[in-house]
Amino acid sequence: MAWNTNMRWRLPLTCLLLQVAMVVLFGVFVRYSPEADAHWIEGKEPGNRSSDLENEFYYRYPSFQDVHVMIFVGFGFLMTFLQRYGYSSVGFNFLLAAFGIQWALLMQGWFHSFHDGYILVGVENLINADFCVGSVCVAFGAILGKVSPVQLLIMTLFQVTLFSVNEFILLSLLNVKDAGGSMTIHTFGAYFGLTVTWVLYRPNLYQSKARQSAVYHSDLFAMIGTLFLWMYWPSFNSAVSNHGDAQHRAAINTYCSLAACVLTAVALSSALHKKGKLDMVHIQNATLAGGVAVGTAAEMMLMPYGSLIVGFICGIVSTLGFVYLTPFLESRLRIQDTCGIHNLHGMPGVIGGIVGAVTAACANSQVYGQEGLAHAFNLDGFKTEWSASLQGSFQAAGIFVSLAMALVGGLIVGGILKFPIWGQASDENCFEDAIYWEVPEEPKNAASHHEDSTLKAPEP
Amino acid sequence: MAWNTNMRWRLPLTCLLLQVAMVVLFGVFVRYSPEADAHWIEGKEPGNRSSDLENEFYYRYPSFQDVHVMIFVGFGFLMTFLQRYGYSSVGFNFLLAAFGIQWALLMQGWFHSFHDGYILVGVENLINADFCVGSVCVAFGAILGKVSPVQLLIMTLFQVTLFSVNEFILLSLLNVKDAGGSMTIHTFGAYFGLTVTWVLYRPNLYQSKARQSAVYHSDLFAMIGTLFLWMYWPSFNSAVSNHGDAQHRAAINTYCSLAACVLTAVALSSALHKKGKLDMVHIQNATLAGGVAVGTAAEMMLMPYGSLIVGFICGIVSTLGFVYLTPFLESRLRIQDTCGIHNLHGMPGVIGGIVGAVTAACANSQVYGQEGLAHAFNLDGFKTEWSASLQGSFQAAGIFVSLAMALVGGLIVGGILKFPIWGQASDENCFEDAIYWEVPEEPKNAASHHEDSTLKAPEP
Amino acid sequence: MAWNTNMRWRLPLTCLLLQVAMVVLFGVFVRYSPEADAHWIEGKEPGNRSSDLENEFYYRYPSFQDVHVMIFVGFGFLMTFLQRYGYSSVGFNFLLAAFGIQWALLMQGWFHSFHDGYILVGVENLINADFCVGSVCVAFGAILGKVSPVQLLIMTLFQVTLFSVNEFILLSLLNVKDAGGSMTIHTFGAYFGLTVTWVLYRPNLYQSKARQSAVYHSDLFAMIGTLFLWMYWPSFNSAVSNHGDAQHRAAINTYCSLAACVLTAVALSSALHKKGKLDMVHIQNATLAGGVAVGTAAEMMLMPYGSLIVGFICGIVSTLGFVYLTPFLESRLRIQDTCGIHNLHGMPGVIGGIVGAVTAACANSQVYGQEGLAHAFNLDGFKTEWSASLQGSFQAAGIFVSLAMALVGGLIVGGILKFPIWGQASDENCFEDAIYWEVPEEPKNAASHHEDSTLKAPEP
Repeated sequence: MAWNTNMRWRLPLTCLLLQVAMVVLFGVFVRYSPEADAHWIEGKEPGNRSSDLENEFYYRYPSFQDVHVMIFVGFGFLMTFLQRYGYSSVGFNFLLAAFGIQWALLMQGWFHSFHDGYILVGVENLINADFCVGSVCVAFGAILGKVSPVQLLIMTLFQVTLFSVNEFILLSLLNVKDAGGSMTIHTFGAYFGLTVTWVLYRPNLYQSKARQSAVYHSDLFAMIGTLFLWMYWPSFNSAVSNHGDAQHRAAINTYCSLAACVLTAVALSSALHKKGKLDMVHIQNATLAGGVAVGTAAEMMLMPYGSLIVGFICGIVSTLGFVYLTPFLESRLRIQDTCGIHNLHGMPGVIGGIVGAVTAACANSQVYGQEGLAHAFNLDGFKTEWSASLQGSFQAAGIFVSLAMALVGGLIVGGILKFPIWGQASDENCFEDAIYWEVPEEPKNAASHHEDSTLKAPEP
Repeated sequence: MAWNTNMRWRLPLTCLLLQVAMVVLFGVFVRYSPEADAHWIEGKEPGNRSSDLENEFYYRYPSFQDVHVMIFVGFGFLMTFLQRYGYSSVGFNFLLAAFGIQWALLMQGWFHSFHDGYILVGVENLINADFCVGSVCVAFGAILGKVSPVQLLIMTLFQVTLFSVNEFILLSLLNVKDAGGSMTIHTFGAYFGLTVTWVLYRPNLYQSKARQSAVYHSDLFAMIGTLFLWMYWPSFNSAVSNHGDAQHRAAINTYCSLAACVLTAVALSSALHKKGKLDMVHIQNATLAGGVAVGTAAEMMLMPYGSLIVGFICGIVSTLGFVYLTPFLESRLRIQDTCGIHNLHGMPGVIGGIVGAVTAACANSQVYGQEGLAHAFNLDGFKTEWSASLQGSFQAAGIFVSLAMALVGGLIVGGILKFPIWGQASDENCFEDAIYWEVPEEPKNAASHHEDSTLKAPEP
Repeated sequence: MAWNTNMRWRLPLTCLLLQVAMVVLFGVFVRYSPEADAHWIEGKEPGNRSSDLENEFYYRYPSFQDVHVMIFVGFGFLMTFLQRYGYSSVGFNFLLAAFGIQWALLMQGWFHSFHDGYILVGVENLINADFCVGSVCVAFGAILGKVSPVQLLIMTLFQVTLFSVNEFILLSLLNVKDAGGSMTIHTFGAYFGLTVTWVLYRPNLYQSKARQSAVYHSDLFAMIGTLFLWMYWPSFNSAVSNHGDAQHRAAINTYCSLAACVLTAVALSSALHKKGKLDMVHIQNATLAGGVAVGTAAEMMLMPYGSLIVGFICGIVSTLGFVYLTPFLESRLRIQDTCGIHNLHGMPGVIGGIVGAVTAACANSQVYGQEGLAHAFNLDGFKTEWSASLQGSFQAAGIFVSLAMALVGGLIVGGILKFPIWGQASDENCFEDAIYWEVPEEPKNAASHHEDSTLKAPEP
């Protein structure tokens, strides 16, 4: 079936409509947080020179920029591994993230930063908006190559909304700790995306199989994404933790977990190939599972060896997933998971939730100190009497809530995206930039690359 | 006409001469600022533990590194979109920027950091030197592919000088605020570059048209540049703002403007293509126009929705410029603008100057607070009595001064570069790395890429 | 001779064995430093709001992330210049660095952070671990393309050990200052790697010559590595310097040295080519020599012009090395140095050690201030009476110790790696990813890249 993939009116109208809505809603609701407002100077006691640095900006901004790179370059380039889908991977990720961060500022703002009728935004809101969009980028990985940009914008609209509701339930109602988002970002994002791709199942996708693989250079582009995700993940998991030791600890734990994960991913990749050769897909993805899986517990007293163990396990689980589970999901469960997000975000996200629940349940004042324990788990107000095991139970509940939200939300959004009116490509035209992009012709022959044939007498 | 493009003596002599001059001038003039001098420790009161962090280094260094990436990777890779000009794009940008930052440290130092016969440099000088070179990178975009490295070094020498004079007029004489450089960097850089390329008009450039386009991979390399510019632009616009709320606010405003700009650029790119397909040129460039256009006003109380509106407009203006204005400029005004800098830096820069002037003219003590208003616009000393509208008028004057400096300076420098002695390529050899670079031969046949044909019995 | 390059059991077992050892050793030895421990909050005086920022995290974390990027993207992509060795360059660098940072945390921890039976790790340990691995990445450059991943892991194991011993001798016994590691990282790493490659000499390596060169795109990938190394080098040299002016000064000096180095590298590259053309190898490598050579002295009062002079000289020395010395080393001394690390790290490292010794020997209280001098060179305790020239002598001794450690260590490790059991490739199969990686088939014909041939009726 040849569907109409012409975006000429659908995409412009969708973009403009959404952007106009953002302008109006920002005009009505969004103002600066006190630390970004020009009145801030009045609040500082004169003579206290150190006060400028006490602005939240200096605690969070370097981490924010690292997270920002992960969302746009990390996720964007990670998905360029397909031979003819580089423009779309980077470009559509750019588009959906640019819309998503605006909508997330609003949605998360209404839930968490709403004061006197206004959402007051500061650098922490920017980080959280990037986080929220991160879960959309995860889901994008499952449907990569099979959807139109209009579908992506619609999915972003709904997923950001559901993300914010789920995040509110976890962080504000269940009092769960999830600084690096193992549950809110990865588990939710992955199972949401997998449900959407299940609804959008394409029985004849084999017709595009020739393009659903890498070429030599596209794998190197993808490594740019992998490495920026890997390197900046310590910033991701520590970006919104408490000031001081919690940020510090989260960075150390993530660093350790990721390092261990690389070695086990390489080990499994080689062991599972009949000639012992490494597979770029595993190196690009499974090496990151350790960062996902310490998302919840990174700011806790997980201990460096605890982080190594988490990374160790996830490198193995994730690589096994790519080799055995992804083909199974596709053939038996009709889940076509282009980037294998179930292996990188789904299972490690759930593991991360469990690790967080166990670590929280084991917390005690000997390890944290009396004051440290209260500070780490916000044990004040009505939580003063909470025990560690109660915190652990609520953490565990967070996993199930996230999964339920993802499945139900994914079914609904998948259903909406299934209408054949959004300009999606037909099965034989998937994974192809030329559907939505003006693609340059390749040079007619390699000869045009040689110096002598086209250049005329460059020097005497 | 076959010009002599042999660089053998011209380029080495130019480089060495300029570098020796830098060494001598640095030896005579440049010393460390007090905050980078070993005597600094003596100025701290003992017992005040917080004093180490009060070093300007910690306020500015993360932003500096982001700006540094924008200049070298951002601009360098943005220009690699041409199929056979990647080495030159990255390499010449590297060369001119490495020279330019040294010369800018001197020129800007004489104007702004000169004390007792010495230029005292600290991290803020490094940022400003990178900013100044940014305007040269902008101008480079207009003449990309048509000039020799010697011409670029000469242009850099003059442009940095003119930039510093213009910046001094704006910031010190007109008391203009322009933290993100909409006027000093983008407007000046773009119209300077456009004037130079107008003077260097090549009537037979169509002979190189085959190389003046992208190939698939070169567009992906260019996206690396685009994304690093886009992601780090909040650091660019906030890097030299006042400590605390101003830096914080500038980052938020830039983040918002850039996000809006992506959606409208995508919308217009699709709407203006007969089949609704996106054009990589627009995605690579027009998505950045929002960052240019909030350069002046980002640190002001522009409000997040104000930033969205600016980004909204600039995404449209910039994309329209690529589709309609660039061909018009080339055919009618004989302005050959390789990278379309008029659309990315020229028009958005002027819009940014206007937005800044209007925002400044609307400033009042209700929005800023009494103290905040004085702090934001330096309303002390002789400016104590300045009204907002007076500040706005001076801001507007800054646009015209920048334009005038750019046009006059561009005419003079263009005239100098027009002499046929600098090793520029002939019209049919433009946009070709092989003129100035040792370029590797392509593999003779694709077969050499196959595993089996060249490898011998890798295992038993 | 066709060696067995099948990694199926060797690589997985090596990885798993090493990683299990890391888990056990971390479990026994590694805990959080007080600044990353949940008890930290108890140590802060209540009411002192500024105390959160006094956490070491905020002094070092932005620099840490820059260094992290240099190790994984910088070194990884710098080595992708080979036409068919991109996967291995990035992937093996990733693998060895991920293992190396864990082992370095332990080794350096035992020497420098060992308290009451535990290694207490904080952000400074992470930076130092990255530094240590940097020296392994340097050595990797010499043997690139000629070793198996198992050999790399074994080399990393030994080299990290030797590095830590050498570092302990220099920093703790000889009281040498070497913040940017000219001696400990670059001199040691380069001569270690050169010795190893000398031991592993391959007389028939010419059989792989066809693959030991670049193609157009691989050179652009390598420029990503070059630029991230170049841009972030100021962070590298300042990352572990004293708080405040020393970090500030180290960044300024490195910035200046690197800028000068670019101009002289370009000058020499052009002057040494018969048609004056630039060579990508020089631009990718020699432009970085200035960063290496101010490693030791960057935090000292070298003065900006001093830094320019160092960069000036190293750009020349390094480029001359590539043109004249590397071929000589290969043909006469049987040292096959794939990446030319002798030119980028070896000679500039030694120059850096000498510059550091001279700068230290010239230090006086007029330039540094009495207190500043004592602070800069830790002249307290038994060093109270040290003269500048004594410090200079010890600095110079550090060079020789590093060279001796590198040569002896390289001989031993080279000998171990020479056993034909590690899965190394035969001479005709060097520089080829397909030995150790599953490499995608290239598309059968260029036609498959054209829009019209494979896409069917994308729109009506």
